[in-house]
Amino acid sequence: MKNLEEFYDIVVVGAGHAGCEAALASARLGFKTICFTVSMDSIAMMPCNPNIGGSSKGHLVKEIDALGGEMGINIDKTYIQSKMLNRSKGPAVHSLRAQADKKMYSMAMAQTMGNTKNLTVRQGEVTQVLTQDGKVTGVKTYSGAVYHAKAVILTTGTYLKARCIYGDVSNETGPNGLQAANYLTKSLKKLGIEMRRFKTGTPARIDKNSINFDKMEEQFGDEKIIPFSFTNTREDIERDQISCWLTYTNEETHEIIRENIGRSPLFSGAIEGTGPRYCPSIEDKIVKFPDKNRHQVFIEPEGEYTNEMYVGGMSSSLPEDVQYAMYRSVTGLENVKIIRNAYAIEYDCINATQLKPSLEFKEIGGLFSAGQFNGSSGYEEAAAQGLIAGINAVRMLKEKEPLVLDRSQAYIGVLIDDLVTKETSEPYRMMTSRAEYRLLLRQDNADLRLSKIGYEVGLIGEERYQKLMEKEALIEKEIKRLNRVNVGASREVQNLLTGCQSTELKSSATMAELIRRPELTYDMLAPIDPNRPEYPEDVREQVNINIKYEGYIKRQLSQVKQFKRLEKKKIPEGIRYEEIGNLRIEAVQKLSKIRPASIGQASRISGVSPADISVLLIFLEQLGQRA
Amino acid sequence: MKNLEEFYDIVVVGAGHAGCEAALASARLGFKTICFTVSMDSIAMMPCNPNIGGSSKGHLVKEIDALGGEMGINIDKTYIQSKMLNRSKGPAVHSLRAQADKKMYSMAMAQTMGNTKNLTVRQGEVTQVLTQDGKVTGVKTYSGAVYHAKAVILTTGTYLKARCIYGDVSNETGPNGLQAANYLTKSLKKLGIEMRRFKTGTPARIDKNSINFDKMEEQFGDEKIIPFSFTNTREDIERDQISCWLTYTNEETHEIIRENIGRSPLFSGAIEGTGPRYCPSIEDKIVKFPDKNRHQVFIEPEGEYTNEMYVGGMSSSLPEDVQYAMYRSVTGLENVKIIRNAYAIEYDCINATQLKPSLEFKEIGGLFSAGQFNGSSGYEEAAAQGLIAGINAVRMLKEKEPLVLDRSQAYIGVLIDDLVTKETSEPYRMMTSRAEYRLLLRQDNADLRLSKIGYEVGLIGEERYQKLMEKEALIEKEIKRLNRVNVGASREVQNLLTGCQSTELKSSATMAELIRRPELTYDMLAPIDPNRPEYPEDVREQVNINIKYEGYIKRQLSQVKQFKRLEKKKIPEGIRYEEIGNLRIEAVQKLSKIRPASIGQASRISGVSPADISVLLIFLEQLGQRA
Ligand SMILES: Cc1cc2nc3c(=O)[nH]c(=O)nc-3n(C[C@H](O)[C@H](O)[C@H](O)COP(=O)(O)OP(=O)(O)OC[C@H]3O[C@@H](n4cnc5c(N)ncnc54)[C@H](O)[C@@H]3O)c2cc1C
Ligand SMILES: Cc1cc2nc3c(=O)[nH]c(=O)nc-3n(C[C@H](O)[C@H](O)[C@H](O)COP(=O)(O)OP(=O)(O)OC[C@H]3O[C@@H](n4cnc5c(N)ncnc54)[C@H](O)[C@@H]3O)c2cc1C
Repeated sequence: MKNLEEFYDIVVVGAGHAGCEAALASARLGFKTICFTVSMDSIAMMPCNPNIGGSSKGHLVKEIDALGGEMGINIDKTYIQSKMLNRSKGPAVHSLRAQADKKMYSMAMAQTMGNTKNLTVRQGEVTQVLTQDGKVTGVKTYSGAVYHAKAVILTTGTYLKARCIYGDVSNETGPNGLQAANYLTKSLKKLGIEMRRFKTGTPARIDKNSINFDKMEEQFGDEKIIPFSFTNTREDIERDQISCWLTYTNEETHEIIRENIGRSPLFSGAIEGTGPRYCPSIEDKIVKFPDKNRHQVFIEPEGEYTNEMYVGGMSSSLPEDVQYAMYRSVTGLENVKIIRNAYAIEYDCINATQLKPSLEFKEIGGLFSAGQFNGSSGYEEAAAQGLIAGINAVRMLKEKEPLVLDRSQAYIGVLIDDLVTKETSEPYRMMTSRAEYRLLLRQDNADLRLSKIGYEVGLIGEERYQKLMEKEALIEKEIKRLNRVNVGASREVQNLLTGCQSTELKSSATMAELIRRPELTYDMLAPIDPNRPEYPEDVREQVNINIKYEGYIKRQLSQVKQFKRLEKKKIPEGIRYEEIGNLRIEAVQKLSKIRPASIGQASRISGVSPADISVLLIFLEQLGQRA
Repeated sequence: MKNLEEFYDIVVVGAGHAGCEAALASARLGFKTICFTVSMDSIAMMPCNPNIGGSSKGHLVKEIDALGGEMGINIDKTYIQSKMLNRSKGPAVHSLRAQADKKMYSMAMAQTMGNTKNLTVRQGEVTQVLTQDGKVTGVKTYSGAVYHAKAVILTTGTYLKARCIYGDVSNETGPNGLQAANYLTKSLKKLGIEMRRFKTGTPARIDKNSINFDKMEEQFGDEKIIPFSFTNTREDIERDQISCWLTYTNEETHEIIRENIGRSPLFSGAIEGTGPRYCPSIEDKIVKFPDKNRHQVFIEPEGEYTNEMYVGGMSSSLPEDVQYAMYRSVTGLENVKIIRNAYAIEYDCINATQLKPSLEFKEIGGLFSAGQFNGSSGYEEAAAQGLIAGINAVRMLKEKEPLVLDRSQAYIGVLIDDLVTKETSEPYRMMTSRAEYRLLLRQDNADLRLSKIGYEVGLIGEERYQKLMEKEALIEKEIKRLNRVNVGASREVQNLLTGCQSTELKSSATMAELIRRPELTYDMLAPIDPNRPEYPEDVREQVNINIKYEGYIKRQLSQVKQFKRLEKKKIPEGIRYEEIGNLRIEAVQKLSKIRPASIGQASRISGVSPADISVLLIFLEQLGQRA
């Protein structure tokens, strides 16, 4: 019996959103990479909502793009509607969101993968991770083939021992009736990896022709769209957009659900996995918010060439007959036809505290993991981790320090820090509220925050980097100028101000002072700023935000300084907490388990108190002196 | 426990090539139809070669189109290369063949289905056929839902208890890793239906970027393409075409296969199903044709937006390492990367002799079946049966005589007659050699042969019908004219003839006589035919062929007359063969099993001799006299 044997630098297990970013990063950085997927048809598939971005997730996509990832470019290619959310609020929470043509998104990503040098995409199920002396050496597939490699990245998403459920119906398949991956879990357990079981869910897909849109509110895309990728201009990607639709559940819907709640596998105990609190099923919502008399329901097209529509907000695993009854009780869905049933899915994943902040397993050298497998939820969360895992697998092979973004640099930093530090007991979802420094971590400045790092890593090319440097210089220069330029109380100025509902000037003021007035913006003041050079829109936006929020930004920057101090205090890898006197037992246990990389990370572990941190600080200082 | 319950006229189980045609026909004829598929993503999927048509299969597609089916329209929408095969041979074997963009083909069909009135498409697995008193009453799905209906059409393709195999690797899934349908077989067996197991296979899909095309022969599409659908003109569907590539196996390839033949599940006995002789695997070919030192290998793109290429001619279920070795031994594939392995698939299907020529089960009223389930192989064969089953389910509900095309009317007639009459012991494939009257059953005249029937059935609209009538009239008129018009031996005429390598006229001749000369065509003679009206290309083609082959056509027409005589002699449904004296035992057995509808059909049953037929004829005559 001969078996196939091949040699690669890096093996990526999975071609979901995490796997694609990981594989692309590693191949683009020059390493011979192979990426496995159970099915070629599931590459970058969206088994749930057909859209990318949204609150805080939009930030992730922009950051991925700023670092040289693919998600932003891919959604720009295949979006069918684009919208900047929360425009009426402050810039920190502006979030870009785009409906995707689901099939096209997947095909475009597959083709990009296929055309990337150093990258092989292979349909095949990985059943074993091979190791030697605590280090990864490759993987084995269902066919018995062995792929040798120096690093392996696990991004198995929702496929490990997957089970799909609604009512009392259960199917041992991955999402969408695709084959599950039933063998890898066993191999991982043998390696000492602790597995756990999570679940998530999706609503029905319904037939466009069976919907009464007249009874719903049409949701248009933005007229002036903003690309996800900093490499695209608006003109590059402008196209006709497709509408979404808004409707609501009502008391009847809720009554139907309440009456049948006992038949839900969630409540009957048939589902053992833990679900995401922040993507609740409709039955969850009804139970948890008994007083709400309606919930939003977004009807979203799954693509340009399909009649399938996604019922946003109505995930469920109720029995089929209840699904019909509840959907049909919603205004506009009175005669709706279900094409695919709603269902929940259970799958094996890990508690990511088994990982270093680099996403490498603490106990197995060269084994990385990313995405839903790490206990997160969401395409963007997966992609972000995938990118970092890919970069860090490469950096390990290059014997470089891993790239660890901290909480002040990026949402990606917050995401990964939370995953590897906090013992989340449910699928983890990104949210703006999780970011302490969110005024700094805006979607609009992701390039300024991260593209230098992307350049150093090697994923951002010289030309893009030079452009960024120019942009940065222009912004700085213009801010300086605006702080200098004085505006007198001339007739022209006073007219403009009153025209903008702003009070007249008593004496002169700098241009920057005027911009800081809530009712004014940089652009509005152009007429009274005769020497203003012409700048591109993205530069003007940065100038405006930076001047307007200067006070808040400064305050957050000084908090960041504080924060960085603790992040920089590294904790040696081999430290034995049980030997530190004065640490509380709970702290010893938690610290020994998580093994934080820095005092900063240690301070965020639940069960570790500020007093414990002080003890730790003193201990480290003494250690330093002794050394 | 409540379950969903719905009411339809017709249920179609399966949305492959057969199911789509069946469901569209029934819905378009005004009947409330629901079509089930295990996965929405497998609608009209091509799990094997990414093309439609080809020798004799092209005829089927044209016939489907002439009757008002969808396949021709759908491939015209989504082809990426089009070619008329066998142009150098007679018009009977001209065959249209088009490469399809596989994903687009599937999506376009799904959308057509979705937009068809009276038609519901539903993802769901049918697990039971419900009957009462020998008549079908509906189906039950995996979720327990019941769909009542007056007719059910089974088109389950290769999904029933499917198992995919290569080397010693076996997976209990349908094609492409999609979920199999594991329950329906049991229900069918309970209804007394005899099931059997067939198998088929597919080659690997390989990475475009790993192929050395310089070493292969480029295969271009036709410059002047011909649409599959009679509703399209060339201009409607002209577009840029993509090339295919031709290369060959060699002695090294064959040696690799021979050496490893023992590891093939086909030869080791691991596969129990029977495979198609006419779509053999490469290992089959090597074993069966030991003297051939090379076989053609066609490298065909699977679509415009994918790098996956199909390796036509190299189906296999050899182990993975052998696949690599054998593909890499082929010129131009030296460094090829496999994306998906080649594999064989086993599935449950029936011997179609359990069906009437209408495709209804003899023993279960209202239960029809079509496609791979009936023991055929091929997309076109499936679609053709699907269309007929859909039409006949409707006709049953309307209490009309079923539509049975005979062997002189259509390849579809040959296909279905063979299936329900002959006990084929392997997947049945259409071939021109199976058609006795193939000079009549040309692809170019499918509309003239069948669109009247399509109109009567209700699938061809008034406008299209009127156009056809006009076309027919023009052809007839022009043929008459050409038989009358005399050409004299003028200088101009002689010049034209010698210019066309034709001998000069001795005396005058009719235009028709000149057309009959092998080296001349209708179009070539235009310059010496001053009164010729301007006719569209399709009319000119028919005129030319009909005049040119008049003698042969007449001969076949008189054979058809003979044939029809026997076809028209119907055999009463309840006839008891064992009570007919002088019939040989084998004939009694065979006739009792097949229960032919006519003497014609009876005469084609293997094991029924001409003498038996005479006996039968006499018996029927007596029966007629007695009645
Ligand atoms: C039904 C459903 C509902 C969801 N609902 C939501 C929601 O409401 N909100 C939300 O944010 N997110 C939701 N998600 C999650 C979202 O799909 C994932 O977060 C995202 O796709 C994760 O990306 P990933 O790359 O980690 O994994 P996936 O996209 O799942 O990709 C995994 C990849 O790994 C491959 N693979 C797995 N095991 C193997 C193996 N052994 N060998 C080879 N290949 C393997 C698979 O073929 C696939 O290519 C839902 C998912 C499902 C299935
Ligand atoms: C690996 C492979 C290789 C092949 N090679 C060749 C070849 O070389 N040459 C050739 O001519 N043909 C080949 N074929 C055959 C070709 O694919 C079929 O002939 C054609 O697709 C048959 O069409 P169909 O409509 O009968 O079935 P399919 O296209 O198989 O469609 C079946 C449909 O039924 C649905 N279904 C099945 N069971 C149920 C159920 N219980 N409930 C609900 N839905 C159900 C499925 O989801 C699917 O939609 C191959 C097929 C496979 C899989």
